[in-house]
Amino acid sequence: MKSTEIRLKNRPVGLPKASDFEFATVELSDPAPGEALVRNTYMSVDPYMRGRMNAGPSYIGGFEIGKPLTGGAVGQVVKSNDPSLQAGDLVESFLGWREAFVAKAKALTKLPQLNAPPQTFLGTLGMPGMTAYGGLLHVGEAKAGDVVMVSGAAGAVGSVVVQIAKAKGCTVIASAGTDAKVEWVKRLGADYVINYKTAGALTTAFAKGAADGIDVYFDNVGGEHLEAAIALGKLNARIALCGGISIYNAAAPPPGPRNYLMLVGKNMRMEGFTVARFASKRDEFLSDMSQWIAQGKMKWEETVMNGLDQAPEAFLQLFKGGNTGKMLVKLG
Amino acid sequence: MKSTEIRLKNRPVGLPKASDFEFATVELSDPAPGEALVRNTYMSVDPYMRGRMNAGPSYIGGFEIGKPLTGGAVGQVVKSNDPSLQAGDLVESFLGWREAFVAKAKALTKLPQLNAPPQTFLGTLGMPGMTAYGGLLHVGEAKAGDVVMVSGAAGAVGSVVVQIAKAKGCTVIASAGTDAKVEWVKRLGADYVINYKTAGALTTAFAKGAADGIDVYFDNVGGEHLEAAIALGKLNARIALCGGISIYNAAAPPPGPRNYLMLVGKNMRMEGFTVARFASKRDEFLSDMSQWIAQGKMKWEETVMNGLDQAPEAFLQLFKGGNTGKMLVKLG
Repeated sequence: MKSTEIRLKNRPVGLPKASDFEFATVELSDPAPGEALVRNTYMSVDPYMRGRMNAGPSYIGGFEIGKPLTGGAVGQVVKSNDPSLQAGDLVESFLGWREAFVAKAKALTKLPQLNAPPQTFLGTLGMPGMTAYGGLLHVGEAKAGDVVMVSGAAGAVGSVVVQIAKAKGCTVIASAGTDAKVEWVKRLGADYVINYKTAGALTTAFAKGAADGIDVYFDNVGGEHLEAAIALGKLNARIALCGGISIYNAAAPPPGPRNYLMLVGKNMRMEGFTVARFASKRDEFLSDMSQWIAQGKMKWEETVMNGLDQAPEAFLQLFKGGNTGKMLVKLG
Repeated sequence: MKSTEIRLKNRPVGLPKASDFEFATVELSDPAPGEALVRNTYMSVDPYMRGRMNAGPSYIGGFEIGKPLTGGAVGQVVKSNDPSLQAGDLVESFLGWREAFVAKAKALTKLPQLNAPPQTFLGTLGMPGMTAYGGLLHVGEAKAGDVVMVSGAAGAVGSVVVQIAKAKGCTVIASAGTDAKVEWVKRLGADYVINYKTAGALTTAFAKGAADGIDVYFDNVGGEHLEAAIALGKLNARIALCGGISIYNAAAPPPGPRNYLMLVGKNMRMEGFTVARFASKRDEFLSDMSQWIAQGKMKWEETVMNGLDQAPEAFLQLFKGGNTGKMLVKLG
């Protein structure tokens, strides 16, 4: 069986280009004992992958030139040579950016039996959802009554942050990059949402929705948003630092928040995290999420592009605001 | 009885000048019931006072133009009209920058009976010491075996951080601004000390003393030091953000740390704090400190200027590296 895969051709400088990727078709062998052959049905593109394309250390290991990219994917077992799996099983893996693959059974996770389509395990019920859950509740320590600020609120992570915060009894102020996204985030329950591209100075804009300041900021974007959150932070406020999509493609690092010294007087905390930290909380996460889904408190959208050849463009669109909710590439 | 006091004449722009201060002599009334008359023997000048000289909010309230400055002081009761105090008692107050004053007895704290001279309660056993103790142990969560990095290590706060970290079994890497200060910090027990003015690139310089990175950074200075600490942070490292003397006098805020996004992958925390947060830990602090003093594990130096008229210059010298250990003005 043949599989087409996408490899890193060049390390991108700034925003990646189509020519930074190359396609190759490989012949897959039959699964050896302990292995299974899987055909991917959906693969994920996520902002953190940009860092892995650079030279030098990345927190989960960099991509190598000439090697296939990796990332979250769901698929179906075609053929199994391991007793733990059988043909037809739906599995999650970290072997995206390819149509099919042979891997050890222990590198595959059978999808839980929850009332949600398989690709949801790449978004709301997967890594982005877990990132939102752990970052908001365990790093940000959001609790009922808190004012929670979220950037990138129409994205795969931000949209879950909004809804968990509402489910927990918080007030939510949020930002997104188009008026249509703003409307969607309002429908998710956010109390006050701005279009950051048209709202003017962000501190002033967010302050209109949080007259007494904020308790938690979940940062997906960095830049001026982060400065606004520091300026609006109440005493003892927490910033859960998830990423900075506004600066991932910067050739040189832009300045950090110019007002960071305000953290001192405000006894305020800014804490970075990666999803790996919450590995032990997966059961708690799936239990809470399935309850919120059953109660109608958790909605999601997907932006789906079709075919492996669209994967580089889907990835690029993450940095151009091209997705509402989870960006996926449908392969099956 | 007359008392000379120092008032804020102009809000400084950049580094304060002598002309930003003015002297005035006032006539003190006799203490009313519940009050006492105190003659200050030492007053403190501290970097945080710079922020209080600016317009706009400060975390402990700004100084007002034309009004006397305030700050830590120790003195002796001259006359008391309250049963809790009697003439001769040594007291601490927040009414520095003046020779004498009349105040409510409840605004005065009798000095504890510890084996240290009274002015120590403005330094190692006072606010700077408590700042070091709380910031290192409660914010930075330093524990035995940790590698602790400290900037401004020859200062009133930094020198105590070094010694507490050593008493707790940490490895200490530190910086100071003259070779003489470097030698003193080594005598305090620090394992590796650089002169940051001559050491070249700070990340490289500190890395020589911490090949595997650092667990805790106690930041007194900001700027390049803070970037070095982020670069050298191990997984789960903590930055206790105490202040940023390198930028207090900046007319416009300089950039924050350009590499702050490294906090994400390192699951690293940067937390601001003020000493007020540790009010409930004062007994624990004095108990630990008196034990370390008795064991010879806690030393201090003082840089003393004589007379109230020297107070503005003493304050200015804080930003010029003019002090080793606690900067004090002797009044009595």
